[in-house]
Amino acid sequence: MAIQQKLSLMIPGPTPVPEKVLQALSKHPIGHRSKEFQDLVESTTKNLQWLHQTQNDVLTITGSGTAAMEAGIINALSKGDKVICGENGKFGERWVKVAKEFGLEVIKIDSEWGTPLDPEEFKKVLEEDKQKEIKAVILTHSETSTGVINDLKTISSYIREHNTALSIVDCVTSLGACNVPVDEWELDIVASGSQKGYMIPPGLSFIAMSQKAWEYAEKSNLPKFYLNLKSYKKSLLNNSNPFTPAVNLVFALDEALKMMREEGLDNIFFRHDKHKLAMSNAVKSLNLQLFADEKSLSPSITAIETGDIDAEKFRKTIKNKFDILLAGGQDHLKGKIFRVGHLGYINDRDIVNVISAISYTLLDQKKITAEQAGDALAVASRYLEKS
Amino acid sequence: MAIQQKLSLMIPGPTPVPEKVLQALSKHPIGHRSKEFQDLVESTTKNLQWLHQTQNDVLTITGSGTAAMEAGIINALSKGDKVICGENGKFGERWVKVAKEFGLEVIKIDSEWGTPLDPEEFKKVLEEDKQKEIKAVILTHSETSTGVINDLKTISSYIREHNTALSIVDCVTSLGACNVPVDEWELDIVASGSQKGYMIPPGLSFIAMSQKAWEYAEKSNLPKFYLNLKSYKKSLLNNSNPFTPAVNLVFALDEALKMMREEGLDNIFFRHDKHKLAMSNAVKSLNLQLFADEKSLSPSITAIETGDIDAEKFRKTIKNKFDILLAGGQDHLKGKIFRVGHLGYINDRDIVNVISAISYTLLDQKKITAEQAGDALAVASRYLEKS
Repeated sequence: MAIQQKLSLMIPGPTPVPEKVLQALSKHPIGHRSKEFQDLVESTTKNLQWLHQTQNDVLTITGSGTAAMEAGIINALSKGDKVICGENGKFGERWVKVAKEFGLEVIKIDSEWGTPLDPEEFKKVLEEDKQKEIKAVILTHSETSTGVINDLKTISSYIREHNTALSIVDCVTSLGACNVPVDEWELDIVASGSQKGYMIPPGLSFIAMSQKAWEYAEKSNLPKFYLNLKSYKKSLLNNSNPFTPAVNLVFALDEALKMMREEGLDNIFFRHDKHKLAMSNAVKSLNLQLFADEKSLSPSITAIETGDIDAEKFRKTIKNKFDILLAGGQDHLKGKIFRVGHLGYINDRDIVNVISAISYTLLDQKKITAEQAGDALAVASRYLEKS
Repeated sequence: MAIQQKLSLMIPGPTPVPEKVLQALSKHPIGHRSKEFQDLVESTTKNLQWLHQTQNDVLTITGSGTAAMEAGIINALSKGDKVICGENGKFGERWVKVAKEFGLEVIKIDSEWGTPLDPEEFKKVLEEDKQKEIKAVILTHSETSTGVINDLKTISSYIREHNTALSIVDCVTSLGACNVPVDEWELDIVASGSQKGYMIPPGLSFIAMSQKAWEYAEKSNLPKFYLNLKSYKKSLLNNSNPFTPAVNLVFALDEALKMMREEGLDNIFFRHDKHKLAMSNAVKSLNLQLFADEKSLSPSITAIETGDIDAEKFRKTIKNKFDILLAGGQDHLKGKIFRVGHLGYINDRDIVNVISAISYTLLDQKKITAEQAGDALAVASRYLEKS
């Protein structure tokens, strides 16, 4: 155990929170029906639209990212509706479960964990659906469990060609990390969560709804109350909420969105991209393998195979020695991979720190040479120096 | 507008939050799958059981009190189930809506807003149900919209005599304010929310589930995923959560529950009771009427009729002059009543402040004499001096 608890969160959420945001979080709450809170809702809603690059409604829910995805699914669809679910990781699996729980008919398009979904498979199934029976395509943009990013832009273009199906997309670890231009890609329903690119603690989730999504919502017959998005939309007309919102998390959201606007979308995306490249390339100098297909690396998470090293022991060693928290593998990947989150409030120092900590530990276990450790840093610097 | 914004929250939620709790809230988040967080879940769960006076499971959900009530209803029941809904205010109305949304058959037992539900009506309907078709009785303990407390103890005894129906109770503004001994009264499902007696900001809600409630949950066929309590129970065995919880609100919860344990249940209940008595009796010296039946006053909210004074204007005057936020009337009561919340982190000073502010404003409007204003304080002091 390190002498001091001085935790560095390098997991795919919760992510580190800026001091300014923590200070906003700890303000005395105000009434959620007050003019002051309405002003906050107005300001955060505008900034959420900016972040989503959309003119569509963006609603804020008190709940996790799963609550937002479930809301998207149950508000747009009706019992027995046919949907495509893309599945190449734990979150893809989860949306299949949600769809089945609510009585949807699921056509699964999957790929091995670590491999991106093939857009052409979506194209094929959508083109064959001459009767336009497919009502939605549900998929995960950045698969948090594997560090893979799926080609949402291309898949979305095939959904548009189909012209009937909605897109319902989990952008929980992509929004605020890489480009997700909701209007340009004509995405219908986009879900995300506060403890990721937003740089605030968990508890809020967000859902962008296109005009077409609202039209589907008018016909949806799945039961819902707390997650009935029509209530949220109606309240939002008055900059309000149907149920008591997590007021202090909204203070934090407001502050974090202002910081994001100050940094600018391009800078945010560039920062995540260079961290991804520094991280993934450095790792290869250390006799470690990337778990995800290198052409489809998530901007937010690098999943690393440890071969004959127990990944769980490895990340615990790093936690105890360096107070750097890494994520483990989920399900069958437990002990086989660890995952480095580089999402949200992460700077170059964090990236160098984690690479150094990994190198140190491998050196200590005589798995690499000093030269390799040096190489990893040199490789990282090549990407980090870009601006 | 007062010169300084120095808000005193005297609404039925969000309620004032102690500095210690705000400080806990603003700590850097930790991983929700870490040992440190598991320890927190273990500690808060034990203290939640203490607060509920129960050995039953008490689950924590990220969401509002409505989410917890909905969870109770949809986890225990199945489509077409017959339920009794008690309705004598806005929240009672809400649970009828939830029940209907999920296809339950609702027998409504109601009373005028401001009047408590009659336990004998529950007895009668339950006794007449020889076929044991009634699966649950859904009701609100303290009706936040009217300041009425319903006689949960007696109604619960009739539910026990029926022996088949579950009790599903909204204790959002009663738990942590007055005695709700879950085990002693054999309550099956009890929902509450963080921004009330718990003294923390909104965002968490709680649900106590009896063994019998879990047996019903095994048979429930209503679709749910985010609010599927079986997932929460399964995770809780490992002091964990099925979905990312609002980590920082759990920090706050832990601190607030420790403060509550320090104060002790009896002291907490006594404090709320004397504030209720001071408030309600003082008001009568001021030519104002209590909206709720005086024999059934909620420990947490005093609803006050303003007669020929516009209640909305009145509470705005008090907000602007004194930075004391009062709640308005809801629906048809808007403009006719205002509501004083005296719930959670409230001391004698807060009560004297709000009585003085009301007196000051009435004096200013020449609605009362100075003697009456003095009387109100004298009456309040009679209750506040008790210990």
